[in-house]
Amino acid sequence: MAGEPIVTAAALVIGDEILSGRTRDRNIDYIAGHLTRIGIRLKEVRVVADDEAAIVAAVNELRARHTYLFTTGGIGPTHDDITADAVAKALGVAIDIDARALELLQAYFKKRGVEPTPARLRMARIPHGAKLIRNAISVAPGFMLANVIVLAGVPEVMQVMLDDVTPLLATGSKLLTATIWLDCAEGEVADLFATHQQTFPDVAMGCYPSFSEGRVSTQLVLRSTDSARLAAARQDLEVKLKACGFL
Amino acid sequence: MAGEPIVTAAALVIGDEILSGRTRDRNIDYIAGHLTRIGIRLKEVRVVADDEAAIVAAVNELRARHTYLFTTGGIGPTHDDITADAVAKALGVAIDIDARALELLQAYFKKRGVEPTPARLRMARIPHGAKLIRNAISVAPGFMLANVIVLAGVPEVMQVMLDDVTPLLATGSKLLTATIWLDCAEGEVADLFATHQQTFPDVAMGCYPSFSEGRVSTQLVLRSTDSARLAAARQDLEVKLKACGFL
Repeated sequence: MAGEPIVTAAALVIGDEILSGRTRDRNIDYIAGHLTRIGIRLKEVRVVADDEAAIVAAVNELRARHTYLFTTGGIGPTHDDITADAVAKALGVAIDIDARALELLQAYFKKRGVEPTPARLRMARIPHGAKLIRNAISVAPGFMLANVIVLAGVPEVMQVMLDDVTPLLATGSKLLTATIWLDCAEGEVADLFATHQQTFPDVAMGCYPSFSEGRVSTQLVLRSTDSARLAAARQDLEVKLKACGFL
Repeated sequence: MAGEPIVTAAALVIGDEILSGRTRDRNIDYIAGHLTRIGIRLKEVRVVADDEAAIVAAVNELRARHTYLFTTGGIGPTHDDITADAVAKALGVAIDIDARALELLQAYFKKRGVEPTPARLRMARIPHGAKLIRNAISVAPGFMLANVIVLAGVPEVMQVMLDDVTPLLATGSKLLTATIWLDCAEGEVADLFATHQQTFPDVAMGCYPSFSEGRVSTQLVLRSTDSARLAAARQDLEVKLKACGFL
């Protein structure tokens, strides 16, 4: 809607295992879809190694540039989990065992008969001044510090944390989408589609080919925050496509 | 092996459709695995929108920092395909219809009875001085310009292009991996594993939890370019794990 602010975000995926190809990231796609639905534009994503300097540099660059920065990964109990400390360093705040997180973890460990080892208690290390983000699966919390939202890397845990933090987020105008599927190669409609873009310069347009079972198809995608403009652009495109025998 | 160089790379995924959650990226994981196998370290990945300024900035930052930069997406026939022009701009070289690419495309179009429309011929736009990368699926080539390797976004096409360019790449020492699977939570082995890291500071170690069908398991991953050190670190870790009843 006109007048609604544009809220932007970046995502930072932290983990050697993604960069080595050992683990396939399942969080980027989930975060992208979730943010689009609630009216936050994901503008860029980075994947960096478990390397403090790389994390600190990326956190500071991305948090300055967007309304929110979401990080995933590196908040577990093992020595390669350095995200909380790196985020504290990036924001210049102290980090220590957090009384609220400690209480949550101790209650959870007690109930399950698990020993609160120093490694496990590392998961209660939270930068000073952060809000905790609830982890409904395995208790060890994420946190939000200024505009940086620190989530787990395990997709199921990341997802419940994202649900928990969502009500705290400012959201803006939602990007609406219209998609038209065609049974032809994108090259066949490219000129028509380029002309259509010129007719509706305020509507973002993308063309996506796919190959499946030896057949080629094309999706024309229109995006706008203005539902009336989107409907007009879609209708006009359908007329053009029908006139040329594509629909 | 000692003495072999370390060759690093970055990947740049270009496309609004990934950032909106419309399309799930399938290239990062594939490129990560491929580069690891051939002895190139993928150090960072970025995803940016179909936005010239964003592409140019990312290309220049990443190509300066690594031996190679691989890009995916944005080289099709439609108006939102701006990667070739953005890469030419980033590297400060001219771009035009390339005679070699034009010949490939015209032969292909002729054989298939497809009209060589201006949009389709956009796919022959290649920056001056670039090597063409063969596309064994749909002919329209990728290219390599200086250390920037421009690949298609459609995964099947990206994969054949990556195979084609691989013999041209300098490769370095391969990162070897040993993985130990445990039927316990990562918190249980975290202290033991941190101690092990101190014993073998030259071997990179990561711990990856997973949840499946209500059961928790943990993978301990050791990484080194030195096979003897890796074997020693693995053997010593297995001894420690057995002594504590984890194996």
